[in-house]
Amino acid sequence: MSTLTTTDPRTGVRTDTGIEVTSDAEVDEIVERAVGAMEELEQRPRAWRADLLDALADALDERRDELVAIAAAETGLTSVRLNGELTRTTYQLRLFGEAVRDGGYLEAAIDHAGDTPMGPQPDVRRMLVAIGPVAVFGSSNFPFAFSVPGGDTASALAAGNAVIAKAHSAHPLTSRASFEALREGARRAGAPAGTVGIVYGQAAGTRLVGHPGVAAVGFTGSLGAANHLRAAIDERERPIPFYGELQSVNPLVVGPAALAARGAEIAAGLAASVTGSGGQLCTKPGIAFIPAGEGADGFAEQLVAAMSAADPGVLLNDRVLASFRDAERELEQAPAVESLLGDAEASAGDGFAVAPRVLRVPAGELTPEHTVEAFGPLVLLVDYADTAQLLGALQAVPDSLTTTFHAESADYPAVSSLLPQISAAAGRIVFNGYPTGVRVSWAQHHGGPWPATNSFHTSVGITSIRRFLRPLAWQNAPAELLPEELRDEYREIARRVDGVLEAGVPVGA
Amino acid sequence: MSTLTTTDPRTGVRTDTGIEVTSDAEVDEIVERAVGAMEELEQRPRAWRADLLDALADALDERRDELVAIAAAETGLTSVRLNGELTRTTYQLRLFGEAVRDGGYLEAAIDHAGDTPMGPQPDVRRMLVAIGPVAVFGSSNFPFAFSVPGGDTASALAAGNAVIAKAHSAHPLTSRASFEALREGARRAGAPAGTVGIVYGQAAGTRLVGHPGVAAVGFTGSLGAANHLRAAIDERERPIPFYGELQSVNPLVVGPAALAARGAEIAAGLAASVTGSGGQLCTKPGIAFIPAGEGADGFAEQLVAAMSAADPGVLLNDRVLASFRDAERELEQAPAVESLLGDAEASAGDGFAVAPRVLRVPAGELTPEHTVEAFGPLVLLVDYADTAQLLGALQAVPDSLTTTFHAESADYPAVSSLLPQISAAAGRIVFNGYPTGVRVSWAQHHGGPWPATNSFHTSVGITSIRRFLRPLAWQNAPAELLPEELRDEYREIARRVDGVLEAGVPVGA
Repeated sequence: MSTLTTTDPRTGVRTDTGIEVTSDAEVDEIVERAVGAMEELEQRPRAWRADLLDALADALDERRDELVAIAAAETGLTSVRLNGELTRTTYQLRLFGEAVRDGGYLEAAIDHAGDTPMGPQPDVRRMLVAIGPVAVFGSSNFPFAFSVPGGDTASALAAGNAVIAKAHSAHPLTSRASFEALREGARRAGAPAGTVGIVYGQAAGTRLVGHPGVAAVGFTGSLGAANHLRAAIDERERPIPFYGELQSVNPLVVGPAALAARGAEIAAGLAASVTGSGGQLCTKPGIAFIPAGEGADGFAEQLVAAMSAADPGVLLNDRVLASFRDAERELEQAPAVESLLGDAEASAGDGFAVAPRVLRVPAGELTPEHTVEAFGPLVLLVDYADTAQLLGALQAVPDSLTTTFHAESADYPAVSSLLPQISAAAGRIVFNGYPTGVRVSWAQHHGGPWPATNSFHTSVGITSIRRFLRPLAWQNAPAELLPEELRDEYREIARRVDGVLEAGVPVGA
Repeated sequence: MSTLTTTDPRTGVRTDTGIEVTSDAEVDEIVERAVGAMEELEQRPRAWRADLLDALADALDERRDELVAIAAAETGLTSVRLNGELTRTTYQLRLFGEAVRDGGYLEAAIDHAGDTPMGPQPDVRRMLVAIGPVAVFGSSNFPFAFSVPGGDTASALAAGNAVIAKAHSAHPLTSRASFEALREGARRAGAPAGTVGIVYGQAAGTRLVGHPGVAAVGFTGSLGAANHLRAAIDERERPIPFYGELQSVNPLVVGPAALAARGAEIAAGLAASVTGSGGQLCTKPGIAFIPAGEGADGFAEQLVAAMSAADPGVLLNDRVLASFRDAERELEQAPAVESLLGDAEASAGDGFAVAPRVLRVPAGELTPEHTVEAFGPLVLLVDYADTAQLLGALQAVPDSLTTTFHAESADYPAVSSLLPQISAAAGRIVFNGYPTGVRVSWAQHHGGPWPATNSFHTSVGITSIRRFLRPLAWQNAPAELLPEELRDEYREIARRVDGVLEAGVPVGA
């Protein structure tokens, strides 16, 4: 039986975890247990499910120090960052609990029987129901918030599903410890066995997405790994959705008035956003457009100074390091690129440490060669002459999770003329801020056109629950056979009744 | 240049239409025009778009007699049926106009900036925006309501997109005439050129779904044709959603108490539902489970009598006829099947006419061989001994758009025990009625697990608009750069503000 290893990115030292890879037979058994759990989960009321999410958050909080220490040794992320991430993770679980209590996500609707312009029509009622067991593939860069106990797991459970996580190869011990906390929380909440499960090893992950019992896949990672899983999904007899969050270059545009008004502040903010977490954030701004001219050189100097002062980043694992080095070299060798800071050949320290990079190219020279994602502390500065040139240059940038504008009022007309193109090429448009630090909330959208995600869904925020639900309608159903949320007298959630939206009256209100 | 033919199913006579197939270059040009139209459509307010939908309905109504006559000659459907279908089609367009005015479908949400348990957070606002040009592939059996001017077109336009329809090979003249009406309505409403387009010929359809400018595909038709298009979509660099409505067996279950109370009425209703429109409805009940015993034979006799009295059906085209004959023979030859009415070898009249069929098998003998879809006036009666046997037999039935129960109170406990399995295997559960005649309304869901559709979406009802929208978020955006629906002072639509759902106050209310 082969076991998994883990590597401390701070030292590069690899050790055996003793964790055995999950066999095909075990994967099948774990999925069967999840399918079995669904039967019982479907009978549980929403209030119970909200309590389950709270119990999972509590169980994670209880093991906080242990989880952070394990994750630090497997990811090289600082304990401040990891503590913040775990707080975000438990906040997310509890917020989804609130959304489950609210019930608006059910999209409940009732059309009473009656005469219509189409003649007499039957009573029809609709709401969303759980889709079935969800496979979750977490990311390397968020060992909690986008991994075993992360957003995909929280939203799939909130929707009423069982979840099977695939442990990440770069942080198997963190995956296991997180899973154990979830399992303990689920046990305390009285969840059926099989509500949460985990598998180890790449082959187990492939087996998992091909299993007929799995109803949807949530994934955060590289385009290459995503395409491997998509190919396995395409071989299924019954297609299932693949919700991937893949890669993103995240262009940032500085307007002339913004540069003049607060260039130094923007340079400092951009440096912090590019170097935070070693630049390994899916929303890291990878390419920054600044107005060419006198102010540009000053901005570049300020940016280089701020980036130089940043802590050297430690990359997450050897694959991330190799891919960052490849991207660095590719960008250095792209036409007309000037390196302002750093060197792809220089070693920055122990383990997988790297030094921050700043490169620069004129917008007139920009090609798709300049817009590869460098997952690490690197930013490409692009000098643009005017709005028309900027518009053209932005077309060379792959569609992204975010686009950011720094703009003063005088810049608004130019921004406004760019918005149609930008709206089609991003999932979130940020003004006078930075795309990193994604708020977990009702209105958040963390998605974007391919290859950011597949456009239609978010992997952060309340509406991510929608990915793991499907509609079901009842026609002329006797009240006693309807879910309680669809009975006439139920008033606790928002519903659209005969076309009119009625707000819910929560219990006790 | 090759031209398309059309065949009158009532006589089998084929004639040339003079309609030329669309060349690759023309397809590309049509998509480019649609992409161009999107730029302008995105700037138009919702009120304009609602008026556009009304104008399209008016233009169709004005050409009603001509459209019905053309469609009758291409489909063999009666003018009563076609008039009803066209009324449904224009009702649908106007209802979607109402939904656009209501604005709830935008799912607008605002999270104001503020302190949260995660620290200070930025202002984030989200709503749904148009996805881009939509390709629509209509069905043979609904030349209006699920074709060029049908639900996919109405919902894609309601969402703010341009639409390119692929004319159906079995009703090219109806497709062209419908398109001309839509184009005229769009012109009157002042829509940009390219808002609606059409292509002719199978190769043009394949070219269409592969074009990078197309953002989504709506399809109603056979599983085989769907898989052909899905393969073409899989070859795209950038995946796009395929919204298919494919095939469905639609099991119907009669409980013992219901059989005793109103067996004759159910037999008559079932016969009408099976033979209406020649049995060529995606929701036609193809398999009916009745309690074995004395009442069963009486029910079978009543059903046979009612089916015998029905008008002979005329099938839509030679492919539908061939496929119905194949299914008939396959079912006749399946183990333990008894034929109660009709004969696969008998000719029923001119053209593509067929006679109604009733077959019968005991539930204990039921296998997947008995559950092929026979698209035409055929129903398989299945005698079940008890609930346990019924549960097992239902597992042999492919997942469907609908499942129907005829049940009196005494039957509810048995129905209730079946509901978990049925809920997972259907998109709509019908009580004491028939699944044909799908209400177009807010709460409708016309979808189901594969191969009915791909579970997550409906192709009938207001929520079908959601298929052609994607979320977009704005962070810290200046009010003047936000869509009006997301500005603080806007009150006309429902929005979730800081987690609380606020009902909209429509203008003039």
